[in-house]
Amino acid sequence: MKIVVDAYGNDLGPIAPVEASINAIKLYNDLTIVLCGKRKELETNLANFTYDKNRIEIIDAEEVITNEESPTEAVKNKLNSSLVKAFECLKQNEDVAGLVSCGSTGAVLTGAFLKVGRIKGISRPALCPILPTKNGGRVMLIDSGANVDCKPINICHFALLGSTYAKAMFNIEKPRVALLNIGTEDKKGNEFCHECFAELKKMPINFVGNMEARDFLSGDYDVVVCDGFYGNILLKSVEGTALFVMSVLKDNIKSSFKSKLGAMLMKKSLRNVKNTLNYNAYGGAAFLGAKKLVVKGHGASDALAFLKSIEQVRTLYLKDFCKTIEEQLSAIQTGETNG
Amino acid sequence: MKIVVDAYGNDLGPIAPVEASINAIKLYNDLTIVLCGKRKELETNLANFTYDKNRIEIIDAEEVITNEESPTEAVKNKLNSSLVKAFECLKQNEDVAGLVSCGSTGAVLTGAFLKVGRIKGISRPALCPILPTKNGGRVMLIDSGANVDCKPINICHFALLGSTYAKAMFNIEKPRVALLNIGTEDKKGNEFCHECFAELKKMPINFVGNMEARDFLSGDYDVVVCDGFYGNILLKSVEGTALFVMSVLKDNIKSSFKSKLGAMLMKKSLRNVKNTLNYNAYGGAAFLGAKKLVVKGHGASDALAFLKSIEQVRTLYLKDFCKTIEEQLSAIQTGETNG
Repeated sequence: MKIVVDAYGNDLGPIAPVEASINAIKLYNDLTIVLCGKRKELETNLANFTYDKNRIEIIDAEEVITNEESPTEAVKNKLNSSLVKAFECLKQNEDVAGLVSCGSTGAVLTGAFLKVGRIKGISRPALCPILPTKNGGRVMLIDSGANVDCKPINICHFALLGSTYAKAMFNIEKPRVALLNIGTEDKKGNEFCHECFAELKKMPINFVGNMEARDFLSGDYDVVVCDGFYGNILLKSVEGTALFVMSVLKDNIKSSFKSKLGAMLMKKSLRNVKNTLNYNAYGGAAFLGAKKLVVKGHGASDALAFLKSIEQVRTLYLKDFCKTIEEQLSAIQTGETNG
Repeated sequence: MKIVVDAYGNDLGPIAPVEASINAIKLYNDLTIVLCGKRKELETNLANFTYDKNRIEIIDAEEVITNEESPTEAVKNKLNSSLVKAFECLKQNEDVAGLVSCGSTGAVLTGAFLKVGRIKGISRPALCPILPTKNGGRVMLIDSGANVDCKPINICHFALLGSTYAKAMFNIEKPRVALLNIGTEDKKGNEFCHECFAELKKMPINFVGNMEARDFLSGDYDVVVCDGFYGNILLKSVEGTALFVMSVLKDNIKSSFKSKLGAMLMKKSLRNVKNTLNYNAYGGAAFLGAKKLVVKGHGASDALAFLKSIEQVRTLYLKDFCKTIEEQLSAIQTGETNG
């Protein structure tokens, strides 16, 4: 199996993706990595390691797409960028299972739309990050921001994608799928939620009803579905609040000698807290519903986070994720006619 | 000035509102408090204090509305409940400035709708909690959940209410008002946001553009406006995430003797963090746009939180909040025709 990795566009440059690729081929004998980016720099970085040279390929790409550019313009015009070349490689080669990028989210989504397309029957692909929960668990959120102004049929597809993803990634037999809402009672929320609720009940998933944002990290749910606008608000407020709490803690630690001493003794605990909150440790956000596997990692991904993203693509490929979705869709006879 | 306080319906019973009322009349010579609830219990609690008996009145009400009841049914049928009697007192007495309750949110909103009504020209009143931000500041969120399926005109009214509130409560000359969105660029978000953005630009407020949920607690904004559905997701995910981070911290502290010792030294700092995150310390959420001032405190409010809520009503009354809103609305010639 081949996986193509966009080695640029991330915050830290090629060091992290190179190290991750080396580790990936050492861990998995079935794997070959294709690195896209500046050939010379990549070769210099690779030279630091001993590895099977047949299992890491390079596609030379001199340009890099940044977060500041218009995603559509960049994907259309920067044909020599690491991301566009990676998508071309994914598109043109049967044996390439999927793509990992930690570059601009907008550009990755645009690339997936333009170069890869949707699984037959999926109305809209969606972004699905994984977050930590209480008691060491995790929860998946779909859609976290790729689609706004969704229709209930989109939400149903997100639910199917998320549920199948949770099964494939974490071997959860009956993932508990909830609808993001402003209360738990069946009739809560706005018009859109009422319609989604009724439609979700008909889907072949373990739909457990409405969930309040307060309980998102409780560990009581495996998959939370919503319009990408709501999902983005939820995801970003979790990020912002976690950072806020840690900064308040930091300020308070600095305020006295006693608490500084206490913090020194708690150093390991505080680092553990930070690690728990770092949801990139689970890998990137999968863009589910695209015809081939695409994982978007955080811009600041280190080698471990890159490796996790590569592992996500590998796991989903081995579980035949895209085909499973297609089969389920044709079985429940929804599909494009409603989309 | 008289302020009526629902002394029941909160989690902790009459002790907190009684103590708060005693403190309030001692702090403010212009104030009389009307306590609604079980007369005998209130008298027993009041007997613990020395105070000017002419300045605390009691309205006997034997029943209590709970969170488990249907708000509409409860407000319509439980005529002898502390909350309904408090609203009757507010409605019938010219000299009663406003109402404080820490009971069921739904019942307080229903009571305000049915018994008090809207300020002339305001399409929908909205709930506006105050949250802590970085560097010891605060941010107001309107609407945090009273209204779903809003129209742009509602959002404009929320902006006017929130901005005027920030001025009145915190003497902020030009409150920075932002629209909750999934990006900061002008054209970001869904159809609804695009319409709201265009309308907000026409309002006589300091509209600073779109804000991402990640920056809600950054201290860069004074008032954040949104549909109550979005606002509720934002508010509750802030609450849930703060609790989550604190629980992860607690679990990690327990994991070793060294970190337990560290936590002991940091006790004061950790308590400060908890206090900072406790946004009820700022008082309750004002229900802005109702014809008279209504403040809904948290169910678990202690005497200090009750006092802060009483102070909110007093401040807004002295600043002639409701009349200011009415005048501004008629000046900008929007009003019911668009609503």
